Amino acid sequence: MRKISDSTVRRLALYLRFLEQSAAQNLATISSAELAQRGGTTSAQVRKDLSFFGSFGKRGLGYSVPELSARIREILGLKRTHRVVLVGAGKMGGALLHYRGFRQHGFDVVAVYDKDPKKIGTRSNGLMVRDVRQLEADLRKEPTDIAILVTPAEAAQEVTDRLIRAGVKAILNFAPVPLAVPSDVAVQSVNMALELETLSYALANR
Amino acid sequence: MRKISDSTVRRLALYLRFLEQSAAQNLATISSAELAQRGGTTSAQVRKDLSFFGSFGKRGLGYSVPELSARIREILGLKRTHRVVLVGAGKMGGALLHYRGFRQHGFDVVAVYDKDPKKIGTRSNGLMVRDVRQLEADLRKEPTDIAILVTPAEAAQEVTDRLIRAGVKAILNFAPVPLAVPSDVAVQSVNMALELETLSYALANR
Repeated sequence: MRKISDSTVRRLALYLRFLEQSAAQNLATISSAELAQRGGTTSAQVRKDLSFFGSFGKRGLGYSVPELSARIREILGLKRTHRVVLVGAGKMGGALLHYRGFRQHGFDVVAVYDKDPKKIGTRSNGLMVRDVRQLEADLRKEPTDIAILVTPAEAAQEVTDRLIRAGVKAILNFAPVPLAVPSDVAVQSVNMALELETLSYALANR
Repeated sequence: MRKISDSTVRRLALYLRFLEQSAAQNLATISSAELAQRGGTTSAQVRKDLSFFGSFGKRGLGYSVPELSARIREILGLKRTHRVVLVGAGKMGGALLHYRGFRQHGFDVVAVYDKDPKKIGTRSNGLMVRDVRQLEADLRKEPTDIAILVTPAEAAQEVTDRLIRAGVKAILNFAPVPLAVPSDVAVQSVNMALELETLSYALANR
């Protein structure tokens, strides 16, 4: 299959959200216009996005909700549950542990780590905070593809290197620094201040 | 000035981070190659991004750190501090209140709101949680451009409508739903599960 762009992947994930809601409302079909509105794009873009993956829509009838949902889940690798480890049990890490959206969408946070002795052994959302020194041993026993990194900036690269040596292939990075990773490891960074800066630009250039 | 794309704005913000660190290390100049590495892009893209705003670099000498920092801050509207209100004092809202990156980058969270009587009146990071019913009255007295929305999905659109009626022009949305806003209001959405889905795609398509 052709490699699709990051922005297309994001739109597919948005379409999927809307398809899931439509399924919950027992809707059988959905139009490209409805998907476009939800994905913040145009009907033409929706048709283009979906045409990558073969023919779905029937002219005048729209897309079959169950069929398109299943296909997008397959494309995004969401037909299985993903195990996730979280490193950094501070306020943001704790908030992410309680974030229900992860499990709802098939991401199961199975372990949380910190290096602070005051945090290790405490419980958060049903998980006991483990000593980050156990990371490699744990991941050997329980291989995990995805890590959520919520450490301070100073610790981020070292923890990243350890995660990668232990076999992690994808990192969701909340630390406010860019991470150096090999080309076979995927990183998505969430940088809250940067999001505000793009809003500041929008305010300054209205 | 020409409208620049969202992805260019994000790269400018990343360049600025690196320029600030370089300034802290007393570096006078920086090359497009260094900026490119930090922005996750190419030297050619850096030169293209910066050429929008006039001529900066001197061939063989690179860019002046203070000059380029000042210009990017101006472009992004960061020459002033922005007042920010936060709605939703749950775990994620509380974690965001403690996020130092906002203030460091000129975003000053001045008020936090919730509708839960158990939360109203409690203190979080030096701010007292206010009753969300005060929102309009407070914003009349203390106009604020930017809001961070951390409510449950069900409340998000109603709170958004109220924020906009009260003069807010930019919203950083952590609620897991898209927001309908007029064209003169900017929204950036942070959707954590969606970030994991893009990682899942990367894992499934290595």
